[in-house]
Amino acid sequence: MCLEHPHRRLNPLTGQWVLVCPHRTQRPWSGQQEKPEKNELPEFDPTNPLCPGVTRPNGIETPAYKSTYVFENDFPALVEVVPIPPNSDDPLFQIAPARGNCRVMCFHPKSNLTLPTMSAADIVVVIDEWISQFNELSAKYAWVQIFENKGAAMGCSNPHPHCQIWSCSFLPSEPQLKQERLRTYYTTNERPMLADYVDRELQRQERIVIENPDWLVVVPFWATWPFETMLISRNNNKRINDLTLEQRQNLAVTIKELTTKYDNLFQCSFPYSMGWHGAPTGPEHAHASSAHWTLHAIYYPPLLRSATVRKFMVGFELLAMSQRDLTPEQAALRLREVDGKCHYTEK
Amino acid sequence: MCLEHPHRRLNPLTGQWVLVCPHRTQRPWSGQQEKPEKNELPEFDPTNPLCPGVTRPNGIETPAYKSTYVFENDFPALVEVVPIPPNSDDPLFQIAPARGNCRVMCFHPKSNLTLPTMSAADIVVVIDEWISQFNELSAKYAWVQIFENKGAAMGCSNPHPHCQIWSCSFLPSEPQLKQERLRTYYTTNERPMLADYVDRELQRQERIVIENPDWLVVVPFWATWPFETMLISRNNNKRINDLTLEQRQNLAVTIKELTTKYDNLFQCSFPYSMGWHGAPTGPEHAHASSAHWTLHAIYYPPLLRSATVRKFMVGFELLAMSQRDLTPEQAALRLREVDGKCHYTEK
Ligand SMILES: O=P(O)(O)O[C@H]1O[C@H](CO)[C@@H](O)[C@H](O)[C@H]1O
Ligand SMILES: O=P(O)(O)O[C@H]1O[C@H](CO)[C@@H](O)[C@H](O)[C@H]1O
Repeated sequence: MCLEHPHRRLNPLTGQWVLVCPHRTQRPWSGQQEKPEKNELPEFDPTNPLCPGVTRPNGIETPAYKSTYVFENDFPALVEVVPIPPNSDDPLFQIAPARGNCRVMCFHPKSNLTLPTMSAADIVVVIDEWISQFNELSAKYAWVQIFENKGAAMGCSNPHPHCQIWSCSFLPSEPQLKQERLRTYYTTNERPMLADYVDRELQRQERIVIENPDWLVVVPFWATWPFETMLISRNNNKRINDLTLEQRQNLAVTIKELTTKYDNLFQCSFPYSMGWHGAPTGPEHAHASSAHWTLHAIYYPPLLRSATVRKFMVGFELLAMSQRDLTPEQAALRLREVDGKCHYTEK
Repeated sequence: MCLEHPHRRLNPLTGQWVLVCPHRTQRPWSGQQEKPEKNELPEFDPTNPLCPGVTRPNGIETPAYKSTYVFENDFPALVEVVPIPPNSDDPLFQIAPARGNCRVMCFHPKSNLTLPTMSAADIVVVIDEWISQFNELSAKYAWVQIFENKGAAMGCSNPHPHCQIWSCSFLPSEPQLKQERLRTYYTTNERPMLADYVDRELQRQERIVIENPDWLVVVPFWATWPFETMLISRNNNKRINDLTLEQRQNLAVTIKELTTKYDNLFQCSFPYSMGWHGAPTGPEHAHASSAHWTLHAIYYPPLLRSATVRKFMVGFELLAMSQRDLTPEQAALRLREVDGKCHYTEK
């Protein structure tokens, strides 16, 4: 089904269409050049507040941590206690409360590591920390967004390997939309949408990047970013904290392989934003059915043609609809073929 | 209503919420630095295919144009003739046809001009060209998206002053969503949503940037980009081609003033994506009512704190919901106060 001409595809998780343009990567580019991200940082940078033993701008010292380290963001977007905003019944001026918190989680004490260059055992430690954070925060909050912005091109403000965890007293727009659409699909088909999707991708074998007993990585049929992937649980997991030890170990290997492929594709430290989506949480959702959900992670990497030429989601994309310059099948083929075992810096 | 604490606001045009965080611009930034865009290009660059008399990569020579110049994009995302894609009743693999075309429109023969440094008379010529293009294309296509990506930070691949016009045989996602929500509002309130919105912003006087008899520029109550603005018709215009001469002249002055304010804010050539939204077109919509629509332009500028520090729409924004680091009222105040008459390069 590798269509050769412009067409649209539907994202069944959001109801949005994406415009797929198979041959647009050939156009000349004299626009912005990214600085390729190299793996060339020092192991320890005494001026970087995320390094063990360094004092942060607010005077608190980052401890001499040995594995992962989690702390409250010093400049949080969400805080636990906020006054309730005034009520308005004007449909044009609707305000709603927003409570939550924002944490930063360092993956490793060394600044010069990234997930693809960490060992699988170290990645298991990261996954376990995600789970212990999720256990604590999901008791209280409706949505716990674990996400990693990697690389300056994806707005990462500090090169030390880390992710963020933002917890919300409400369901944000994307999860809210998924919640509704997954539920509708489940009502009609009596199966979780993403379980059906995994089955059909396994049959079609057109967009698969990595496949193992616990996890499937595909460039989704409706991908918008050039090398976007979804990492989907094959075990009917609903949330990150219901993974077994084996599933976690397999996840670590899968993450290492996927991010190694990414780095090897353009021989650079591949930037991306990634994050986890699963069934909503908190007192509000504790007793609701989560049967329609399937745990999955999404990777949004911006690079399009090389380490220095990215895709911009601008003009038409912001004002009209998402648009991509190669097909998901073309992207999947390249990711499938590139080496996922040996990182280019080790060759 | 300048709220001091994190809260959410609803965009009534899309139904999406945005997370508003009033005090997040103070956090330290060691992430990507933009190259500030300066107005320092040569008037004529013999290697730039958008300059008069230069040969484009495909061998066609750009004529020695004297005002605006429109040509078909050599690498179009949309083309007029495409085979109809295969039908599928699998809800997970939905494909739809996409026909259209893509044009590039140069604003002026000189490379070193931008809208704020062009004369109002020259901007009228641009508006008139928009209208003549729209007249031609709207006869055939359901949606004609006129948009400008300005600056490398907004993915502009050529610094010569220009915009693009992408025409679609279908309604893209954003206009489709607006179409539905504007119609619902009209059915309930018997008034176009944006006409009501203009009235209320005029009453509240909290987010207005520029006000004249024909046009209102506001930072919308639900803005997501730091200095996002909407330029709204106050005359119940439905589409760009129903503007009177006076409205067009006033529009030119308004555009010049708004973009001068933008440039003066951080003393640089302010990057943005902007585009026009109005009632849908083409044979399909020719006989439908457009009473619920109000012609408006939207500006999405990325800069947040200075000419070199932008807002990234990444991680949480992609995976959960839009988030902004200052309130719309704070942004409006700064844009209102900054000089809109004299460009900083002329001081
Ligand atoms: O056609 P251009 O200017 O090269 O391309 C620019 O605008 C397009 C439409 O918004 C985007 O799809 C591209 O990502 C962007 O770089
Ligand atoms: O908190 P950081 O890493 O400085 O900030 C980064 O991630 C945030 C969450 O996605 C975004 O809102 C910021 O625009 C981005 O720069």
